[in-house]
Amino acid sequence: MKFVTTNQGKVREAREYLSDLTTVEQFDYDYTEIQSDSLADIAAAGAEEAYEAAGGDDPVIVDDAGLFVEELDGFPGPYSAYVEDTLGIDRVWELAESLADRRAAFRCTVAYADGDVVETFDGAVSGTLVTPRGSGGFGYDPIFEHDGETFAEMSTEKKNALSHRGRALAKLADWLAENS
Amino acid sequence: MKFVTTNQGKVREAREYLSDLTTVEQFDYDYTEIQSDSLADIAAAGAEEAYEAAGGDDPVIVDDAGLFVEELDGFPGPYSAYVEDTLGIDRVWELAESLADRRAAFRCTVAYADGDVVETFDGAVSGTLVTPRGSGGFGYDPIFEHDGETFAEMSTEKKNALSHRGRALAKLADWLAENS
Repeated sequence: MKFVTTNQGKVREAREYLSDLTTVEQFDYDYTEIQSDSLADIAAAGAEEAYEAAGGDDPVIVDDAGLFVEELDGFPGPYSAYVEDTLGIDRVWELAESLADRRAAFRCTVAYADGDVVETFDGAVSGTLVTPRGSGGFGYDPIFEHDGETFAEMSTEKKNALSHRGRALAKLADWLAENS
Repeated sequence: MKFVTTNQGKVREAREYLSDLTTVEQFDYDYTEIQSDSLADIAAAGAEEAYEAAGGDDPVIVDDAGLFVEELDGFPGPYSAYVEDTLGIDRVWELAESLADRRAAFRCTVAYADGDVVETFDGAVSGTLVTPRGSGGFGYDPIFEHDGETFAEMSTEKKNALSHRGRALAKLADWLAENS
């Protein structure tokens, strides 16, 4: 299987979940991300395109992820990276501070394409938005609190164990075990 | 020429600028919008896709537009519709209220594809973000002030005369006059 990503850390994470079922190789390919409020639609379109680009000899997986704030109808959602680059996380917190309900979730969808089927698998970690705390992690980690700690305060091990991507990969592993 | 839109008002506006050069028909086609911080890239990809979908016998035009806030690195930019649906314009104003520099622009790109070339034409109207005022218009109009009035306070005639889309269509008309 080919994981379409430039991030070796993601490839290692996928191997943790899939090594009993398949090999996982990195595939560096810049697929088109479509505009949609659905991570599944974006990842599925990317997986279909990347499967063709890879020559069609091996299944591919693509992931997409974002921070979804409940009371903001999911904002910034699929556009989390763009919003981080433009607004920045301090302004996202400024918006969240005036909300009555600060619940949010990190969501990830992994899409699998093998030329016959395209399947998507979702994972999520729930939390609450808080004043930025902690110096670890990246992106929205300092304002996302889960179980009393922000993701920027957590050890890498603890954060990885909670991974939204890991939860999606675990579902993919179950599906592969049943369907291959 | 085919204008890929579901909006008859846009077709009428295009005819105002292009009627001496070509006919303009509405073409109802749901092209894929790609993720990009460039309106030109999004519109160009849409025009190429729509040209093929239309059968390749007639040039097509596609437009994309958004509100770009200077100090927010262009946010909400190409994702203006998504941000309006999720955050809403009151929260965009809340963000703008804390900025030292509230300059913004409505930008539009019209992309033209005829099977040989893809050309893009940009139009913009500059303004300042203000506390919502006025009951006309739609979208970000109540918080966008130009020359002392918000777009929601302006007469339709005055607003249309300032149209960012019109400015892009005027450039397309100049180009067509020189290249056909």
